[in-house]
Amino acid sequence: MTEQTKYLLDESKLPKAWYNINADLPVPPAPVLHPGTLEPVTPDFLSVLFPMSLILQEISTERYIEIPEPVREIYKLWRPTPFIRARRLELALDTPAHIYFKYEGASPVGSHKPNTAVAQAFYNKQEGTKALTTETGAGQWGSALSMACNFFDMDLEVYMVKESYYQKPYRRMMIESYGAQVFASPSNRTQFGRALLDEDPDAPGSLGIAISEAVEAAATSGGTKKYSLGSVLNHVLMHQTVIGLETLQQFEMAGEYPDVIIGCAGGGSNFAGFAFPFVHQNLTEGKTTQVIAAEPAASPSLTKGVYTFDYGDAARMAPIVKMHTLGHSFIPPSIHAGGLRYHGMAPQVSALVDAGYVEARAVKQLDTFKAALTFLRSEGIIPAPESSHAIKVAIDEALQAKESGERKVIAFNLSGHGHFDMTAYDAYLHGELEDYEYPAEAVAEALHQLPQAMAV
Amino acid sequence: MTEQTKYLLDESKLPKAWYNINADLPVPPAPVLHPGTLEPVTPDFLSVLFPMSLILQEISTERYIEIPEPVREIYKLWRPTPFIRARRLELALDTPAHIYFKYEGASPVGSHKPNTAVAQAFYNKQEGTKALTTETGAGQWGSALSMACNFFDMDLEVYMVKESYYQKPYRRMMIESYGAQVFASPSNRTQFGRALLDEDPDAPGSLGIAISEAVEAAATSGGTKKYSLGSVLNHVLMHQTVIGLETLQQFEMAGEYPDVIIGCAGGGSNFAGFAFPFVHQNLTEGKTTQVIAAEPAASPSLTKGVYTFDYGDAARMAPIVKMHTLGHSFIPPSIHAGGLRYHGMAPQVSALVDAGYVEARAVKQLDTFKAALTFLRSEGIIPAPESSHAIKVAIDEALQAKESGERKVIAFNLSGHGHFDMTAYDAYLHGELEDYEYPAEAVAEALHQLPQAMAV
Repeated sequence: MTEQTKYLLDESKLPKAWYNINADLPVPPAPVLHPGTLEPVTPDFLSVLFPMSLILQEISTERYIEIPEPVREIYKLWRPTPFIRARRLELALDTPAHIYFKYEGASPVGSHKPNTAVAQAFYNKQEGTKALTTETGAGQWGSALSMACNFFDMDLEVYMVKESYYQKPYRRMMIESYGAQVFASPSNRTQFGRALLDEDPDAPGSLGIAISEAVEAAATSGGTKKYSLGSVLNHVLMHQTVIGLETLQQFEMAGEYPDVIIGCAGGGSNFAGFAFPFVHQNLTEGKTTQVIAAEPAASPSLTKGVYTFDYGDAARMAPIVKMHTLGHSFIPPSIHAGGLRYHGMAPQVSALVDAGYVEARAVKQLDTFKAALTFLRSEGIIPAPESSHAIKVAIDEALQAKESGERKVIAFNLSGHGHFDMTAYDAYLHGELEDYEYPAEAVAEALHQLPQAMAV
Repeated sequence: MTEQTKYLLDESKLPKAWYNINADLPVPPAPVLHPGTLEPVTPDFLSVLFPMSLILQEISTERYIEIPEPVREIYKLWRPTPFIRARRLELALDTPAHIYFKYEGASPVGSHKPNTAVAQAFYNKQEGTKALTTETGAGQWGSALSMACNFFDMDLEVYMVKESYYQKPYRRMMIESYGAQVFASPSNRTQFGRALLDEDPDAPGSLGIAISEAVEAAATSGGTKKYSLGSVLNHVLMHQTVIGLETLQQFEMAGEYPDVIIGCAGGGSNFAGFAFPFVHQNLTEGKTTQVIAAEPAASPSLTKGVYTFDYGDAARMAPIVKMHTLGHSFIPPSIHAGGLRYHGMAPQVSALVDAGYVEARAVKQLDTFKAALTFLRSEGIIPAPESSHAIKVAIDEALQAKESGERKVIAFNLSGHGHFDMTAYDAYLHGELEDYEYPAEAVAEALHQLPQAMAV
């Protein structure tokens, strides 16, 4: 008898509400602080950047928040996404483990990012926002928000980390195809950007810097533009839970339940979106699934960072949150997983790691690409370098299960495909990739810049 | 009430057999001729290039040929593919027509090509072939066959049109990621390639030349290597019918039946794979669906070529078939739809066009990209330039339906996504794309080179 490979959900099974972990967090969420006063922010301050509906979602403790019908209608262009049993990978590893993956690369832009981009564009449109500003690293977020703004007929300015702007022109072109404007960051469009260019006209930029520029562009627009963030914040994580909520249903179809759940973590949104519904089951239904966040060894906020209050951006204009951080001025080495190069980690993910409900593992670049190659030669799909961090941990778990003889059920989120990352594969295949060391001194320096009041 | 967007088939509904149009062709298929003797080929001659099982499929008149279980198992990694009602495109066009598309870009390599690549790799492996050789234009076929050979643990040599090799490095890298070797064609690995390089070291190559090199590499390998073709031949068309056979079932789910079916046509395989099951319904079940092949105005074999016997390749080493052709030495202009730049057309498609069962339309490059942009801004998915030819015709049909007030049901095959074609979109958005004229003199010259015995 043939065994099933894919578990497809009919669109009638698309979740009707997102899951909000704030309702179940074992420790109360820390307050968000004003970057100037270091006092808890008021909704007024946040409303310069965000529409009120998203601010309310940010602080909500409701367990489920309804997904608006226009957002669900757009989700249906590609959702529910496939849930796939990686049988050929299991064979290649000769493991008794069952390996599953959720495939978010099935979205039009090839990643999980539209799950929140569409929601954010919708709420902004509803409150009369004319244009959004945002940053993008590797370009995944920029292309997702560009598609979303196009759907809701809104303008978009994307500040793209300069290094990626030139090294990943395909993503820049994709963003422009959907109609948004893209600027290499640091740019001369903002005060912060101009100051940096004055210092060094060839500055390669960083995600933190690009965030600062996008925030400045919105904050100084006189109310015509709002800012949109692709990760870290609670409303972003919540919008992503559509991934895990679908996966729960698909596990039911498969007649199994996971022993281990794995997601890669940069800002934390795809990890949270996949894992939080399972954390919920652990917290409230007595389940005992092991939940692992896989991060790059070159930018190891969870495994090597400090759990403290820090700025969300390099220019210290964005709100301050309590998170695992390498310091807001830390610029991670140029690893190919551009989407995982952020100095901090989502507060909700950080709190769960700190409290022991989520485990963090750091993965090296070369091991990651080796795992990616094993996966793509078994399953066909070329994974994004970001997602390959989760694959590496999944393979480790499957090999451990082989040693112990356990028939473990392992699932990871394949957050995106790697069609825009072929140069990274090329470099790996030609032996030109390196493992980057975690630059301990740079981080110590960066953490030293935290204001005294915010120290651990 | 919400209306459905996607029609997903469970993998248990994956077709168990391919459809062979030879069983129903209103005119008997013309013989395949030996390139040297101009006499009908013997299986012995073909067996230098192809395994016997594929030769038998090539000449079979069985209506259905069983899909081997190992091939179906690999199909299930991504098949059945989604069938999608393009509701947002309908709204954008303000048309009463219902527009559907079949999404073959859902495969790991982003196109329909693996449908036959996997089958060909399987049959070769079964008959003991150690390595395959092939050509690739834009790289879609090369990446599909590379993935397939990897699945069956076989070596692969890909001769890639030199221009694409350098202009589309991402596809070259993708082919290498699956483990195949890629050579820019003309190469110095074959006698034909060396002769061309002697004449002009900077020769940009063509699909016809790359075919010649791949054929030579197999024919002179002393039996260790076979050759694999990604389009044109009947067994290739047949393997692709899994697309249309799924679509028939998905139309049933949608409770509709198409008035118009559209596919883009280069060599003819994605068109045939999508359309032939509907042609079958027309021929045997009294259906009257209009069937349209969309080809580029710059390489218009069906609308401007001659229906006659011609060589399949530039070096006149490949078998001679009766087809619509622009002449085997014709090198089409450098349009961005690299997959549609072939001098000829599949014999079965040609015969059906000649007999009036299939309509052909030529589409200009700028109109094609305009249509692609309308589509991607409505539906999100960025279409391949090749597939966009079908979109252009679908939009034309939908706008005509709007004028006439007809509630037509229109369906097209979205044969691939355009993630590797962003430079073409970039050129279009920046006004740098041109419409290429059909070079009538070049074609007349090329047709003049046909041997007298083969003249119309």
